[in-house]
This record gives sequence, C-alpha cells and structure tokens, in this order.
Amino acid sequence: MTKPASIGDSLAQVATPSLLVDLDAFERNLDRMAAAVPAPSPGSSKVRLRPHVKTHKCVEVAQAQVARGAVGVCVQTVAEAEAMVAGGITDILLTNEIADPRRAARFAALAARATVACCADDARHVALLDEAAAEAGTRPGMLVEIDVGQGRCGVAPGRKAAELAQAIARAPHLRFRGLQAYHGSAQHLRDPDERRAAIAAAADETRATLDALRAVGLEAEIVGGAGTGTFALEQQAGPWNELQAGSYVFMDADYGRNTAPPAFENALFVLATCISTARAGHAVVDAGLKAIAFDSGMPLVVTPPGAAYQKASDEHGSLELGPASLAVGERVRLIPGHCDPTVSLHEWLVAMRGDRVEALWQVRARGAGL
Amino acid sequence: MTKPASIGDSLAQVATPSLLVDLDAFERNLDRMAAAVPAPSPGSSKVRLRPHVKTHKCVEVAQAQVARGAVGVCVQTVAEAEAMVAGGITDILLTNEIADPRRAARFAALAARATVACCADDARHVALLDEAAAEAGTRPGMLVEIDVGQGRCGVAPGRKAAELAQAIARAPHLRFRGLQAYHGSAQHLRDPDERRAAIAAAADETRATLDALRAVGLEAEIVGGAGTGTFALEQQAGPWNELQAGSYVFMDADYGRNTAPPAFENALFVLATCISTARAGHAVVDAGLKAIAFDSGMPLVVTPPGAAYQKASDEHGSLELGPASLAVGERVRLIPGHCDPTVSLHEWLVAMRGDRVEALWQVRARGAGL
Repeated sequence: MTKPASIGDSLAQVATPSLLVDLDAFERNLDRMAAAVPAPSPGSSKVRLRPHVKTHKCVEVAQAQVARGAVGVCVQTVAEAEAMVAGGITDILLTNEIADPRRAARFAALAARATVACCADDARHVALLDEAAAEAGTRPGMLVEIDVGQGRCGVAPGRKAAELAQAIARAPHLRFRGLQAYHGSAQHLRDPDERRAAIAAAADETRATLDALRAVGLEAEIVGGAGTGTFALEQQAGPWNELQAGSYVFMDADYGRNTAPPAFENALFVLATCISTARAGHAVVDAGLKAIAFDSGMPLVVTPPGAAYQKASDEHGSLELGPASLAVGERVRLIPGHCDPTVSLHEWLVAMRGDRVEALWQVRARGAGL
Repeated sequence: MTKPASIGDSLAQVATPSLLVDLDAFERNLDRMAAAVPAPSPGSSKVRLRPHVKTHKCVEVAQAQVARGAVGVCVQTVAEAEAMVAGGITDILLTNEIADPRRAARFAALAARATVACCADDARHVALLDEAAAEAGTRPGMLVEIDVGQGRCGVAPGRKAAELAQAIARAPHLRFRGLQAYHGSAQHLRDPDERRAAIAAAADETRATLDALRAVGLEAEIVGGAGTGTFALEQQAGPWNELQAGSYVFMDADYGRNTAPPAFENALFVLATCISTARAGHAVVDAGLKAIAFDSGMPLVVTPPGAAYQKASDEHGSLELGPASLAVGERVRLIPGHCDPTVSLHEWLVAMRGDRVEALWQVRARGAGL
C-alpha cells in the first residue's frame, strides 16, 4: 500500500492527491466538543457523546474521542465495527440495520469481544440477529430505529415502535437497548430556526415513543440521535441521552454554508498539485472525482486564495484562477464539500503539525464496507 | 482485505454492496470492439486500439484487451502504470501530465521494464521527466497534449504544440512519440450530429498540428484520442491512429442517455441489499455515496423492475418502488451512472458467469492514485 508521506516529512514532500488533517485545528475541535458535551460522572443522567466514526474510519481518531470522554462510538457498517473493536474500542453502536445473515453472524461474533448494539425497523432484522447470536453464543444489543423526519429508515414513532421493541425484548439472544432517533436531513437546513423546529418535532415524536415503550413495560437505556449541525438542540431538548455527531472533527464546505454554522474549524484538506496551466486564466489539478466527493457541491480553494474549483472529471479538477496565479508543480489546498465520502476515497489521512507530518492514520474499512 | 465472494459462489452468496461484471456481456463488448478496431497486421497503417484502463484498473481486463488485439493500454496515473507493468502489460501511454519530481522518478524507472510514454503541455513537464530519466538511465517517451475542444489540459494546436514537441525532441533522455488529442467532452454530447461536428473540428486542429510538426521536421508516431462515445468518428477522420476508448467494456447509465448510443451492453452492476421497507412505497438499500458515483446522475434500477433510485446518502440509497415490491434482505441490481469513478470506490470486481462467481478481479491503484 503506497503511503502518501513518511513521518517527519515536510508538506512539500507529501504526495498528491491526499488528505491532510491539521492537527491543531482537529484537537481544538475535539476540545470544543468535550467542553460542550463533557464526560458523564458515574450515574449521571447528563447527555453523553457517542461520536460517529463513519466520518473518519480511523482508530486513532476514535481513541482520541474516547480519551476526551466519549462513552463509545457509532459506526455505520459491520466492517467499521470490526475495525473499531480491533482497535480497542469497547462500546459500539451500529446506527443502521443488518439485513444479511453472514453480516449478522459477524456482528453477533463481535459481541463476545465488546459491548455492541445495532438497529432494527423490521421484525426480519430482529430474527436475523437473534438467530446469529444463538449460533455465536452471544447476546448483542438492539435499538428500534424510529423515523423522526429523515424519511429513510425507521418505523413510525409510537405504538409501532413499541411493538418492535417488544419483539426484541422477547428474543432470547438479544438485549433491548433503546431508540435510534436521528434526524439526518435537519443537519444541513440552512436556517437555525428551521433546524430548531425540525428537532423540536423530532423530540415530540421521540417522547411519544418513550411513552409507548413505558406503556408496554419497556425502558430505553439509550436514546440516540443528533449530528454536528443540530447536537446542541438535541442536548437541550430532553428525550435524547446520546449525541452522535461525527463531522465536527473535520468539518466541510457544506456545514460552512449553514447560517450560524457549528463552532468548529475546518481541519480536513485535500492537497493537490497543479498539473496544467495551458489554458489562460485556468489551472488543472490532480484531484477530481476519484479524490473528492461532490455530492454537496464543489470544494473550496484555500490556496491559492481567489481561485475557484469549477469542474471535476475523473482525475482532473479545473480551477478558475481569478486573481490567483499557479505554476505547474505548485500545491493547491482544498476544503471538500462533504467530509465523510471524501475520506472514504482515500487510504490514508496525513496528520500534520504545522509543516511536519506527525502521523499517518489509516482509513479502515474504506469504502462502502463489505 | 475482505473479499465480497469466493470463486464458485452463487449470486446469493455475494456480499453487498459490490460490483458485478456480467462476463458474457463483457466478452461480447470486447469482441465487438475487436471487430470494429481489429489488431493491425505488421506495418499496417490502420487505426489501432489502445484502451483506457482508468475505467477498470484491472490487470485481468487489460490482458483480455491486449489478447484481442489492443497494441497496449492507456493509464491516467503513475500508480496505474506501475500496476499494469507489474501485471505484464508492456506498452503503456499515460494520457496525462506528470508535475511532481518523485512521480517523474517512478515513471522514468518504469521505462526500464516496459515501453512507456506520458504527455506534456508545459516545458516544466519536459524538464522534470528528462531529469528523472537521466537519473534512472532510461529514455521514456513523451507526447504533446493539445486541446482539441475539451478545455482542460493541452497546449493550443499548431505552432505552440510544435515548439513543445521540439523541446521534447531536444531533451537528451526523452523520445518524442506524438500527439495526444482527446476530446473528452464530445463523448457525452447527446446528439450524434453534435458529436460528429465536435470530432470534425478536433480533426482539423489535429491535422494543423501535424502540419506544424512537419514544418519543424518532426513526425508523430502516435496520434491518440477518442473515447467510447465517438471512437468510430475518430477512426474515420484521418489524423488519429490510436483510439483510447475505455468505458466500452462496462458501459453505464450515462452512455445509455446518448441518442444512438455506442453498440455495447451494460456489463457492470452494483449489487445491493434492501435493508429497510419501513416507509410505504419506498425501500432503502445499502449502496449510497460510498458505493456508487453520482456525478453523472442516479443509477438505474434493473432489479426489481419499475423501482427508481431517488436519493443517496453516505451508506444508504432510497428507492421509490412504484409498481415493484421489495422485502428486507432481498437483492437489488443497479447500473451506475458513471462506470469509472464507481469502480474506483471498490476493491474487487466480482466476475459472474450467469449465477456463478468465476473470478475476483482486484481494482489496482484504486482511488485517485498516489
């Protein structure tokens, strides 16, 4: 596996296209989140942080989050869960459904080595994991995912969710752990009042579901949700006790487009090289569709200031230079539109302290996760 | 490295999300291209095929292309060139510029093991590779890239290109090999008349540049260009002698949107699993932004027929079911919008003969290519 740099290298020695983490900014982001959502004291009912590792897929980042008080991590795939357990993380919530028997078997096996739970929105998920856990001789946890506005996975809040929770509670090899109540689409609502209204409605749905659970004699130990765009709202709202923000470690151009964006810094950059200046007023860099995710718009150009990323093809990015100038071989620094799928395109994160490479972090279970 | 399947597995045993190659369709595509652009007899002046491996990044596919008469392959990155040389491909054209001294050193070293050439559109590219070749004791080839309408890399056709060719010819450790004249944006012009006009204009620019070369005493041994959308036009037009089509092996949804699309079949599919049907009329699959490229639009749903892929998030794809039905755990087969960046998201291609896994092909130098 070709590495983009060696520890101790200067920025000029880092191969491109690659991903840089500005460690000073990254650590300030971790500190800010730890101050906003402090580690709970034993027995405390305070809202806890369980950050999502789908953003970074790095054991080193997860360990830094847990060291600052996170109660564990969220993952989105079984492959991420396996990578985190291998990296010593002991409490893992898979905020997604498992619909395949082989994957259920792998997840059930993990329960022998760590505290693990995943989600269900269908009786089939319950049956699959219960069967796999019986085979593995383990008892993984399971949460009911409810749809609080995202319109993706999740049963309807209320009675239907309580029925599914009862199915989990009855399953001999599973442990009912609580509710997954994530409003993903609220994260990027541009206006703070819209975000507030979306989370208030989600809180009502979540409360109604907790009532429905109590009516059938069940308690939710975990009530999880929230992302970087709204976590302060869920923290105040009442029903949630675990916040699942992930992007705050790196941020991205799209979060920057929110009005009153979350108070974190851009700590993730794509480093590219100018490969052509043949067209007047334009430059071409070596970072295109295979190096940057474009689902949330174009990357921002940090260096050289004044240039704008205009168009991507597979291995090329076309910049309009504006007042900037660039020569072949010069470096360009970009902020990706969306951090999670951009990280997933790379094998390594190059962790920089100023101009010096301090560490190389491997992106585990890179990609969609087999 | 987790593999999505084992040889001999049935389709039901293939993990998701993964990439399937329908070997029967794939081989018909190879055969059709070999019939359209046959292997040249020795000394023939006929137009040759030099397919682009940036589509598939697989040694096995490149070998099948060469076995059917391709004179060599095109690559887009030094990492792809290294992977192809390691896989026994002996004639490689890097259809891109090298702007970094370490990368130039790696490319110059390859020239000791294979016939290699890359492109230049700036004197800096020439100086970098000449210096690296002197150090390596090799003499790689170099082509001048001209901009024939793409508006990306490439010097202006004509005199300016001839001056750069002279710089290459004067460089003691380089070999001037010819012109790179690729009109990328013409491939996806929807209307055949528009494509024809774009390639006719590109042919004029290329001819004018060949005249300018002759005026300074230089001949282009290679005149390369063309893609899957236009290669029959370049084949007829005159100035080109090498066709660089890549996507024809797999095709994709976007090429299908051309009027009079190229006569190849979809041979590449994303296999996904339905993970949720909680929302009426909708289903969620486990293939989103980290498994499929969306730069050329939504994937098409092949199975179940009638469903439409509506929206992607990182690990989820939301389908509108229409007349179709799906249950949790059932498989979904998709045609990606754009094959090249979709392949680059995966580590393996699962080569299927009907319902049986016949081979696993590794996607080499996956990603943007360090």
